[in-house]
Amino acid sequence: MHFTSDNAAPIPPRVLAALTAANCGPALPYGRDDLTAALTARVRTVFEAPDAAVYLVATGTAANALSLATLCPPWGAVFCHSHAHVTEDECGAPEFFTHGAKLVHVPGDHGRIDPQALRDTIARTGSSLHNVQRGALTLTNVTEAGTVYSPDSISELAGIARSFGLPTHLDGARFANALVATGASPAQMTWQAGVDILSLGGTKNGLLGVEAVVFFNATPERLWEFELRRKRAGHLLSKGRYLAAQVLAWLEDDLWLHLARDANAAGHALAAGLAGLPAVTLLHPVDANILFPEWPAGWHDHLQGGGAQYYPGDTLAGRETARLVTSWATGPAEIRAFLDLIARAPLPASP
Amino acid sequence: MHFTSDNAAPIPPRVLAALTAANCGPALPYGRDDLTAALTARVRTVFEAPDAAVYLVATGTAANALSLATLCPPWGAVFCHSHAHVTEDECGAPEFFTHGAKLVHVPGDHGRIDPQALRDTIARTGSSLHNVQRGALTLTNVTEAGTVYSPDSISELAGIARSFGLPTHLDGARFANALVATGASPAQMTWQAGVDILSLGGTKNGLLGVEAVVFFNATPERLWEFELRRKRAGHLLSKGRYLAAQVLAWLEDDLWLHLARDANAAGHALAAGLAGLPAVTLLHPVDANILFPEWPAGWHDHLQGGGAQYYPGDTLAGRETARLVTSWATGPAEIRAFLDLIARAPLPASP
Amino acid sequence: MHFTSDNAAPIPPRVLAALTAANCGPALPYGRDDLTAALTARVRTVFEAPDAAVYLVATGTAANALSLATLCPPWGAVFCHSHAHVTEDECGAPEFFTHGAKLVHVPGDHGRIDPQALRDTIARTGSSLHNVQRGALTLTNVTEAGTVYSPDSISELAGIARSFGLPTHLDGARFANALVATGASPAQMTWQAGVDILSLGGTKNGLLGVEAVVFFNATPERLWEFELRRKRAGHLLSKGRYLAAQVLAWLEDDLWLHLARDANAAGHALAAGLAGLPAVTLLHPVDANILFPEWPAGWHDHLQGGGAQYYPGDTLAGRETARLVTSWATGPAEIRAFLDLIARAPLPASP
Amino acid sequence: MHFTSDNAAPIPPRVLAALTAANCGPALPYGRDDLTAALTARVRTVFEAPDAAVYLVATGTAANALSLATLCPPWGAVFCHSHAHVTEDECGAPEFFTHGAKLVHVPGDHGRIDPQALRDTIARTGSSLHNVQRGALTLTNVTEAGTVYSPDSISELAGIARSFGLPTHLDGARFANALVATGASPAQMTWQAGVDILSLGGTKNGLLGVEAVVFFNATPERLWEFELRRKRAGHLLSKGRYLAAQVLAWLEDDLWLHLARDANAAGHALAAGLAGLPAVTLLHPVDANILFPEWPAGWHDHLQGGGAQYYPGDTLAGRETARLVTSWATGPAEIRAFLDLIARAPLPASP
Repeated sequence: MHFTSDNAAPIPPRVLAALTAANCGPALPYGRDDLTAALTARVRTVFEAPDAAVYLVATGTAANALSLATLCPPWGAVFCHSHAHVTEDECGAPEFFTHGAKLVHVPGDHGRIDPQALRDTIARTGSSLHNVQRGALTLTNVTEAGTVYSPDSISELAGIARSFGLPTHLDGARFANALVATGASPAQMTWQAGVDILSLGGTKNGLLGVEAVVFFNATPERLWEFELRRKRAGHLLSKGRYLAAQVLAWLEDDLWLHLARDANAAGHALAAGLAGLPAVTLLHPVDANILFPEWPAGWHDHLQGGGAQYYPGDTLAGRETARLVTSWATGPAEIRAFLDLIARAPLPASP
Repeated sequence: MHFTSDNAAPIPPRVLAALTAANCGPALPYGRDDLTAALTARVRTVFEAPDAAVYLVATGTAANALSLATLCPPWGAVFCHSHAHVTEDECGAPEFFTHGAKLVHVPGDHGRIDPQALRDTIARTGSSLHNVQRGALTLTNVTEAGTVYSPDSISELAGIARSFGLPTHLDGARFANALVATGASPAQMTWQAGVDILSLGGTKNGLLGVEAVVFFNATPERLWEFELRRKRAGHLLSKGRYLAAQVLAWLEDDLWLHLARDANAAGHALAAGLAGLPAVTLLHPVDANILFPEWPAGWHDHLQGGGAQYYPGDTLAGRETARLVTSWATGPAEIRAFLDLIARAPLPASP
Repeated sequence: MHFTSDNAAPIPPRVLAALTAANCGPALPYGRDDLTAALTARVRTVFEAPDAAVYLVATGTAANALSLATLCPPWGAVFCHSHAHVTEDECGAPEFFTHGAKLVHVPGDHGRIDPQALRDTIARTGSSLHNVQRGALTLTNVTEAGTVYSPDSISELAGIARSFGLPTHLDGARFANALVATGASPAQMTWQAGVDILSLGGTKNGLLGVEAVVFFNATPERLWEFELRRKRAGHLLSKGRYLAAQVLAWLEDDLWLHLARDANAAGHALAAGLAGLPAVTLLHPVDANILFPEWPAGWHDHLQGGGAQYYPGDTLAGRETARLVTSWATGPAEIRAFLDLIARAPLPASP
Repeated sequence: MHFTSDNAAPIPPRVLAALTAANCGPALPYGRDDLTAALTARVRTVFEAPDAAVYLVATGTAANALSLATLCPPWGAVFCHSHAHVTEDECGAPEFFTHGAKLVHVPGDHGRIDPQALRDTIARTGSSLHNVQRGALTLTNVTEAGTVYSPDSISELAGIARSFGLPTHLDGARFANALVATGASPAQMTWQAGVDILSLGGTKNGLLGVEAVVFFNATPERLWEFELRRKRAGHLLSKGRYLAAQVLAWLEDDLWLHLARDANAAGHALAAGLAGLPAVTLLHPVDANILFPEWPAGWHDHLQGGGAQYYPGDTLAGRETARLVTSWATGPAEIRAFLDLIARAPLPASP
């Protein structure tokens, strides 16, 4: 019963097979190999974006922070949701890579930025020399709360940013999960909705440790700047073929979408099992593969003692919260075992 | 005929097999998995250093820059050879990670720092508030010139640093090649010689893209700082098991030393073939797997036209230079083909 | 009618006289002059802190940002009020000087941090490697809202910080105004209340452009680090005697307190004049020399057209806001003229 | 006998008088005052540069580092003389302000960059993604060795930089001394010779602590970037009128040139007195107000014991070196006293 994170899952056999196939003879280093070239072509097709540029890095934190540094100067503001991964879970990486930009929080229910709040927050930022200046918008899809933005929502938010002259970055650590949750195409969810740069996450959806940064409309100067930033940050891996091979296999025959569909289906199955229980509340809608249940105090001991692994959250007023994440590898037996364990959890005495 | 770099070589089958073996069920992310724990134990044994701490990252640039940032404040000087990788080939990564430390160049023949020059350079640095302060020493073994330091040489240089209160970092992108070239043990080449932190390179010696940072005598506070720096730089990979598995397989049965021995042997075979040619001069002693031949102008066209791949260097006064690197995968046929091609190179007309 | 800021005021004659007196013969540069030495002795006496260290810089932004950089690592959190000068009015200087620390906002009424909110905010920061770590607390007295903290309030907040192991910085751009508003002694308002570093503001209280950074309990290593940071930031002025001379004259015979008393008295006179008007609301208590009136829409045009200078704020629902600041040089005639102008302002028609 | 530095001298009475005159009533802060506007007009006239932009800061280190940060990205190289102030005497300020650019040393006799060495050094920098990229050239006039560049020399060097697409910064901490030494006009020494940004030093030539950064051909975007960088670095002083007033008085009636002429004349008088002594060698030509004598070991004790103040340099092979700097305030009696003291110095016994 492993619900810690989707990055705890193993790698699908087809991805491993692709590594083996790539392991043949010498190849030019630093992304000058044939597989990396093939990947760019493939991503352009998948995103219907013939001018897209693609760069691979090993972590989502690197993908996000390098992207934001390319979009926002040191004296700029990056507008993000108050609970975005970039501001809560990256130990200040965006601040490091941007040389000190400020992450300005925008509220919104269930992990989604509220459009009016975004408009107000941007409007009151950067009014003078004394303030940090308006820099960029970053969205996350799937959000930290496990909800998703529709392409229309992204379009609305990116449009607000653009009305102030700001570009939009999309943190797609779980981009495939968002696609299958909404039925949107890659293009609809990104450049057609006004996204300038995408962090396309592979690691949480079956890869060893690969994320693609996809630029949809950047100038050659901007791309070269990104390449220098990536090298300077130690994120230009020499043996690029082994990264590209993984992503190619993952995009082949829609494997990435199949994996995401399995992960989301597991999330929904788990949510369905919990939704029927009066003692359990789901704090956010379950749109993909992340759940935030709240249950009676004492259950953590019962569940973790029974072998369930997940991140426990706050405890307050007799209630505990938790985060559960499913992956492509989560099986029905695992879900059933967890729900059985839940069924045996001690109920609080009536008041 | 691929002599571009040892990072152009493929991965040995045993490393791929280890990846497959690691790919089983869920594992805790961010280095809390069993393989990462096993790796630390194994490195401690290999280095005879029961207190060593080990952290994995994906590139040598990250390993070096994170190490130096841990040793040297923003206002400090990192003493390095004038042609060290950290100052010439990392696009300013040490400056980025240290927040602006200065790399102070120390001369020395054939890529090796001259002890007296080191003493003088440190002595005249940091004499007042107006100067950058003395920070750390970094050495490279195998050096950029393809030569090696003996443990005694490292001990002498690290001793000079220590006499000024400075720690020593060793960039061991080709550490295994240096070990087999000198016959030294891992312990002799590092902590017994005064090295505080080692960048233990795996990528250029058969791994997919894995380097280990090994601390020999750091406090818990220093190690925690390193962990924060690594996370903040996007270099904490979530699926740590796939990195650890590679390094474990590589250390198993001395695979790393066998690979390095093969690479060095290929280098020596190539050097032996070139050494007999009057038109060719080797600019540096060939201690490991890197050669710097100088030959008549015009040969680049002949050799590259004939299918040889390598980095050409400067052209001056009718002579061309080149860098040739061999790897564990360089075969005798490849060397023979290159030497045959050389044998057919046009000789300059006598004056 | 100049209420833009207290930094728009001229310099008192005694400060100019001190400059003239200091202008005699050569003096060692970089703070090694006699006046700088005398200043340290004087500050120690005034603050009853025989071990205090004192450093002069030219701006409050430098004083704050250098102090925070000394207290908080790049991966740390600086806890500050949501509207603190450091986060709203310094164009990201703390982020620049700290190399990317995060300013974490703590709410509280009228510019004062709420103790419980501080406790909660610190508690939920830095729980793991993935978050920025707890760094330091910074308070502002007089606050941005024109209110003051009592020594007891500072003691409570610094105590909360200390209970988490965190140091406290006090931004005293208007420190003298806070002293005379509360009747506290310099010692009571700082080290006796748990303050570790004070930005002692001179510029807004009569000096040309001088702020003192006062350390109450720092180690020699910490002080040396501060000196290097100051130099490296271009904030070590060579002709230190001209800065020290100003601060010495300002501390002499309590000139600084007299100036602050005059400024505060002008603020209270202005507040008293406005308080009686039904069309005007004061948004915050007027504890010192800053007022935030709210009045009917349209008054900005009337007042600014009539020659009043100040920063206008938001306009909402038929009301306008403004910030008015008085200084030691604000005269009764200026206040009277402004109130007369107010008295002639157009009243909105009754609904 | 005070030859420590020209920043040890007092302020000329006319500059103090200007401060007093400026001290009248309120003035808008942050450079929006009338004197600052007048200064820009005046600098444009003096430099025959109707589009020049002028910004004031308090130190030369700030002027230089802010200028270089505006010209050179974090991954760039700043080409400077091996002994330039920016690389030897600013504790890494350029690295701090540029976020880690690399200062690449160019040799040359007597503090002046050698043109061919500059061409070669730029040519071999930035050849690939792995290196820091070419950023900017910075020159110093008067040089650190006390020599000067003629406008033609500056033009040649800036031309080499421009041929690689690089801008040129001029560190003019002693700009007026260079002007009077060469007889060049401000325009000839700067934009007519290809200089893009000038650090115009006032502090070492009579001002309290004021340097002007002068842009000759910058875009509005670049100027706004500079303004943000200055604010963010804490170098935007609120009471700008007191800085502007000083520079205006200094430019009035060529006061700045008169002061520099006096300083240089004192330097030449001192040099003439030393040049006649067989025991003394002047290590560099004395073009302005800085001398580097070499004399017999033991003289430091004699001279410093006799009341002379200066920076002693290296001691080697029975010889001592020193740096002597004269200022506008150095009087004939001071020079005579020093030469008298020299005349009584102990001569080494003949071998």
